[in-house]
Amino acid sequence: MKINCHKNDLLNGVNTSLKAVSTRTTLPILQCILLQTTQNEFKLISNDLEIGIESHVKANIIESGSVAIDARIFSEIVKKLPDAMVDITVDESNMTTIICQKSIFNIPGQPGTEFIQLPQVTKDTSISIKQSVLKDMIHQTLFSIAIKEIKPILTGELIEIKDNALSIISMDGYRISIRKVEFMDDFSDTAVVVPGKTLSEISKILSSDEADMLSIYFTDKHVLFELEDSIVVSRLLEGEYPKYANLFSGDYETLITVNRKELMMSIERAALIARESKKSPVKFEIKEDTLLITSNTELGNVHEELMIVREGQPIDIAFNPKYLLDALKAIEDEEICMQFTNALNPCIVRQVEGEDYKYLILPIRLNG
Amino acid sequence: MKINCHKNDLLNGVNTSLKAVSTRTTLPILQCILLQTTQNEFKLISNDLEIGIESHVKANIIESGSVAIDARIFSEIVKKLPDAMVDITVDESNMTTIICQKSIFNIPGQPGTEFIQLPQVTKDTSISIKQSVLKDMIHQTLFSIAIKEIKPILTGELIEIKDNALSIISMDGYRISIRKVEFMDDFSDTAVVVPGKTLSEISKILSSDEADMLSIYFTDKHVLFELEDSIVVSRLLEGEYPKYANLFSGDYETLITVNRKELMMSIERAALIARESKKSPVKFEIKEDTLLITSNTELGNVHEELMIVREGQPIDIAFNPKYLLDALKAIEDEEICMQFTNALNPCIVRQVEGEDYKYLILPIRLNG
Repeated sequence: MKINCHKNDLLNGVNTSLKAVSTRTTLPILQCILLQTTQNEFKLISNDLEIGIESHVKANIIESGSVAIDARIFSEIVKKLPDAMVDITVDESNMTTIICQKSIFNIPGQPGTEFIQLPQVTKDTSISIKQSVLKDMIHQTLFSIAIKEIKPILTGELIEIKDNALSIISMDGYRISIRKVEFMDDFSDTAVVVPGKTLSEISKILSSDEADMLSIYFTDKHVLFELEDSIVVSRLLEGEYPKYANLFSGDYETLITVNRKELMMSIERAALIARESKKSPVKFEIKEDTLLITSNTELGNVHEELMIVREGQPIDIAFNPKYLLDALKAIEDEEICMQFTNALNPCIVRQVEGEDYKYLILPIRLNG
Repeated sequence: MKINCHKNDLLNGVNTSLKAVSTRTTLPILQCILLQTTQNEFKLISNDLEIGIESHVKANIIESGSVAIDARIFSEIVKKLPDAMVDITVDESNMTTIICQKSIFNIPGQPGTEFIQLPQVTKDTSISIKQSVLKDMIHQTLFSIAIKEIKPILTGELIEIKDNALSIISMDGYRISIRKVEFMDDFSDTAVVVPGKTLSEISKILSSDEADMLSIYFTDKHVLFELEDSIVVSRLLEGEYPKYANLFSGDYETLITVNRKELMMSIERAALIARESKKSPVKFEIKEDTLLITSNTELGNVHEELMIVREGQPIDIAFNPKYLLDALKAIEDEEICMQFTNALNPCIVRQVEGEDYKYLILPIRLNG
């Protein structure tokens, strides 16, 4: 194999590939990146058996071939090369020579044929969406997947296409997060559960540029994200995702409208006092037109007061402040609504007008 | 005690004080910040028995007094308060009430009288210097103090005032770093060894603004740094600092002049191959007008070539790349000189013209 490309193009490809390189693995070949050429393409491929990534790098292909090379040392070398053209040559014994200006590296590689190829995904069911929108949707829900694998299906997110809307849902047993966008185009209904790790890695690759689109292809076993210069394939989680829709009833006894940032800052301050013991919640007291937030532990006590607009009944209810803060930080609106039924039932944080996001949060039962 | 001040002034004071709060201590009172008022001053005092800091905060003093309050919870509360005026009131039982707009905190404190006061330092011998200059001098030498306390004196830096020049010296048994500035004013000769931790903390407080000055006062046991809004007192290390001056002889067999940044980048790349085993050095081969840098380990091999200007003999010599990189990163000049006698004696990295800095680095003996 022999190719010639620019250091910056190579570095972009390497940085993308690194997101699917195994760090702990019983298969040492998976700690490598596969460098592979076809007639007119130079590709970098990585695969940790859950996610696989193929990045395309602009290059002059002088001689085709392939080599698997240790991802850590290769990426560190590429990162530190001068900003100039790079020659990569691989000999019959897989010795890989990297030349850039007056730097020459010789790194032993392994045969490209030993690398585990990515699964083939048939491109039938698909949607097309802005990268920036998917990036935001992941960011605004991923925090509430389950961390522990007691219920493995909850370590992923449900991606649901229904009635020309895309919803992303996560839940961990204490809260549910939902983000939804409507499409102008017609797409077939489908629903898959994608591992949280895949979504975390893909969101790092997605561009924030409004103009960049991506396509997502769905099969029974896999999901494939197709970007301009790269492809990410992931296996899906198997099993049935819990029903959630009927938990979000429109009924409530109390509805408040409040400034999101002020509420967030007040809860953050109250959480300073609450945090010492996990059992210490922050307490909400909804009065006429004020929300009192208090906490009282061995560290001291705190009393916060906020202006609100209230409909319905006064209510006292208590929460784990982290769950509220995760949701409030994910929202960008200036004002939000919170709806309550009673102190033992979940509250719902939602948009003042519209259905872009909904966060359901279980309360903590107060003693006495 | 009762005072009123702006959140931002208070936060500046708290952030400075935190640098001398004990994190691990057998004396719980040292995890506190002392809030203390005199007739017209509001001070925050922290003391970990090695360093002590007194910060002055602009405030209206309504009632004088003092309280010792847990540094961690106090600093986190102040950080999260709104940008507004803050009232702090302490009652007879040391309960401290912090009010800022609609936030009210009550935090139990301890009697201010239980706090360990800072040592008194007589202000006889002193120098005056730009904060930005001292900050740079510390940054450019502190990396080569000894970490392990086999020779405790080497865990500090020698601050030496002699012939109207200030020198800061550090050494760890493998290398010596020296930074020197000359004064326009007349100062008495003196020499003290200041703990590395003190210098690290003081350098974070020092301003980079060219206009800001500080005074340093020396006694047998202590050094005192006086800034505009704060005072830092530190104990000195006891014992005799090793003689170093005669190691920097002007004699050499080989002298090269080289671009600092190119040299640094080449050594960084070579270090990628060398780093796996600590025994693997990078090798320098100084030829006619080129410097070859190579390394060869089980990871592969690397060959770097640099243009140099050479005086004297060709030489082959090997180094721990970290020691060279630490020195080269600390320097700002575009070009530097390196002088060598032979492969077993230290090399000296120095200014092309002038004596602002000198770095002495021991080589690694090559096998065979």
